[in-house]
Amino acid sequence: MTDFAKTAESIAKQARAASRLMAQCSTAIKSEALNRMAESLADAAESTIQIANSQDVAAAKQAGLSAALIDRLTLTPKRIAEMATGLREVAALPDPAGEIERMWVRPNGMRVGRMRVPLGVIGVIYESRPNVTAEAAALCLKAGNAVILRGGSEAVHSNVAIGRILHDAGQKAGLPEGALTVVDRTERELVAALLKQDRYIDLIIPRGGEGLIRTVMEQSTIPVVKHDKGVCHIYVDQAADQSMAESICLNAKVQRPGTCNAVETLLIHQAVAPTFLPKLIDRLQQAKVEVRGCARTQKLVKGITAATEADWTAEYLDLIVAVKVVDSLDEAVEHIATYGSQHTDAIITRDYQRAMEFLQIVDSSAVMVNASTRLNDGGQFGLGAEIGISTGRLHARGPMGLHDLTTIKHIVLGEGQLRE
Amino acid sequence: MTDFAKTAESIAKQARAASRLMAQCSTAIKSEALNRMAESLADAAESTIQIANSQDVAAAKQAGLSAALIDRLTLTPKRIAEMATGLREVAALPDPAGEIERMWVRPNGMRVGRMRVPLGVIGVIYESRPNVTAEAAALCLKAGNAVILRGGSEAVHSNVAIGRILHDAGQKAGLPEGALTVVDRTERELVAALLKQDRYIDLIIPRGGEGLIRTVMEQSTIPVVKHDKGVCHIYVDQAADQSMAESICLNAKVQRPGTCNAVETLLIHQAVAPTFLPKLIDRLQQAKVEVRGCARTQKLVKGITAATEADWTAEYLDLIVAVKVVDSLDEAVEHIATYGSQHTDAIITRDYQRAMEFLQIVDSSAVMVNASTRLNDGGQFGLGAEIGISTGRLHARGPMGLHDLTTIKHIVLGEGQLRE
Repeated sequence: MTDFAKTAESIAKQARAASRLMAQCSTAIKSEALNRMAESLADAAESTIQIANSQDVAAAKQAGLSAALIDRLTLTPKRIAEMATGLREVAALPDPAGEIERMWVRPNGMRVGRMRVPLGVIGVIYESRPNVTAEAAALCLKAGNAVILRGGSEAVHSNVAIGRILHDAGQKAGLPEGALTVVDRTERELVAALLKQDRYIDLIIPRGGEGLIRTVMEQSTIPVVKHDKGVCHIYVDQAADQSMAESICLNAKVQRPGTCNAVETLLIHQAVAPTFLPKLIDRLQQAKVEVRGCARTQKLVKGITAATEADWTAEYLDLIVAVKVVDSLDEAVEHIATYGSQHTDAIITRDYQRAMEFLQIVDSSAVMVNASTRLNDGGQFGLGAEIGISTGRLHARGPMGLHDLTTIKHIVLGEGQLRE
Repeated sequence: MTDFAKTAESIAKQARAASRLMAQCSTAIKSEALNRMAESLADAAESTIQIANSQDVAAAKQAGLSAALIDRLTLTPKRIAEMATGLREVAALPDPAGEIERMWVRPNGMRVGRMRVPLGVIGVIYESRPNVTAEAAALCLKAGNAVILRGGSEAVHSNVAIGRILHDAGQKAGLPEGALTVVDRTERELVAALLKQDRYIDLIIPRGGEGLIRTVMEQSTIPVVKHDKGVCHIYVDQAADQSMAESICLNAKVQRPGTCNAVETLLIHQAVAPTFLPKLIDRLQQAKVEVRGCARTQKLVKGITAATEADWTAEYLDLIVAVKVVDSLDEAVEHIATYGSQHTDAIITRDYQRAMEFLQIVDSSAVMVNASTRLNDGGQFGLGAEIGISTGRLHARGPMGLHDLTTIKHIVLGEGQLRE
């Protein structure tokens, strides 16, 4: 075994042992741990955390990282306070573990139920934003799991500092040793070795760019729930309330363009395009959005850049939007199936039949009628904090909260039943 | 791209295209397809199927395969009739696709729901028993998926013959081309290439021995739900009803020893061992069960073979059982956690407190009080037919029926809601 394999196995084994104790931790202890973590983070904000973070930021500047990346890396007092608030919010959420979802009686009198239990050991592989360290730890631990966190090498000092604070606070509240591990080594070989620990780790959640997700999916022998890109669409139907459509398109694009549920492509029915598009594009441009249009859009509004094939699959995460005029609901649905990423897609219409058809045929983590794509979110859906929006189809789809960080076991209450 | 990669991509792409059409197939068409398949299988039993099967059986004999393997491979008229019955039973099950599990209203008036939808494209990789071809096809198609089946090379003639019959019957009922593919090539490289088609295939289900499951898990970039071995335990507590305990231990071992939910290790509390074990072992031996015991068991009953460390992790799938005397519930639970496979474990007791403790602490796909481990089964639990018993923790755990062959999408009914 290589040194990396040994280290990975030892980390994973310790987490596995801790996960058995975590599964027996009371809700009170888990919540107390998160509240203590919040307190310790706030206390250490201006000392340990910012000192460690400034090391990362200095190194990033020296390495010539982009201003956007450096911004994502930087922990201001406000951001640290937000991390603490996040921890307290998760502490206050109901504990999914132990909940019995359903219990039924069989003809032989045996009672069968489904009890939620922690998943076990969760590994989170992420990039850039050190806030993820606290967010991911809070959700995994509250659901009763042990968690192994491996952030990007550019944030290693910040992550390790935050990790140490969370770890110590957790210990004081009674969490078992090994419940929370922040990997302090940055070698890729160690990540590769961790991804092979399927005997001890139950789930890997990669959070980051396409390259990271691809690498994790290729290397992991552990199940992966990915949080991939969002190429989200709004289809404005011929029967749309045009003023509602305008508000929703604008909100979905500009309210926070850097998020995965921001809209990237607008599909406009040809019957309303001549009246609707000039007004909409005017408002988008006022909001500093760059519009890239199909040939029919270019005819309707002068001075619009031509959209290329690459625009239909682009996740801009920026103040840019692609616009296409379509002949029918069928064409819109076909476009979404061809170019979309099954993340979030909406129809704006007053027509009952077409609303139902869109809901039925479009197959995305959220399919919406007359609402902004930006609402596909754990908080907005009332599911509590989320560890991401799953773009996979297995285990979790859409906002992934505490519930999806658990699994079930069947429980059977019998009185001597046998198999005939 | 190699020839294997090209073939794999072409199979997977065609299945992906078919899966979009399958998702829109009505329940009536899907059920009609399964009923027609059942009819065609029965019609072709004595001609096409048995001729193809006799080729496989002859080759297996020439290759010197064991009598047990040849038995599993052989399709008798009775087994073909059972396949047809299985297809009709799945046809009659309720369709999970389209079901809305829950719908709730948010403070802004937006309604959010969870709608069950087909998983998409499912690949099943299996060994030996050609019956699996019909069973797996029925469940995957009924839930609205496209399915790619790749059986063992020793059964290729049987599988291809069954596949052709199912395919043609499905087509006549209106299933799309590509909804059901039985891979007719036996090269391992083609399986390896299929396991990389994560753009087109959503789930891989391996059914077979440990070697097959290991290979699939290591090679697949597609999510895998495994159906692994069952090292199942019964713990007979000091407060057990001894006559109930005797019946359950016997039933769990001998009713069908070759199944994954048959018991493999009996843990007996030391307080009842002196009275209980001699009677139990006598009955087991009368039923031709070979008993391997710990030192304390050997002291209580003369002539018992010593159990070695390997016996505690053994999945015998045969008339053999390991017996261990334990000092406490804690020791039993610890033994199960150390040596078990988290499949099915039961406690026999009249003590409420210890029953609850066992249910809480033991973490297996089914945890039972006073019932035979053989009851961990889709049919027995009332879930309908199953494609296997998942020993993974992600997506499905325990009996995996139609429900687990679907995923969800969130549907949102709005009236112009925006993200504030």
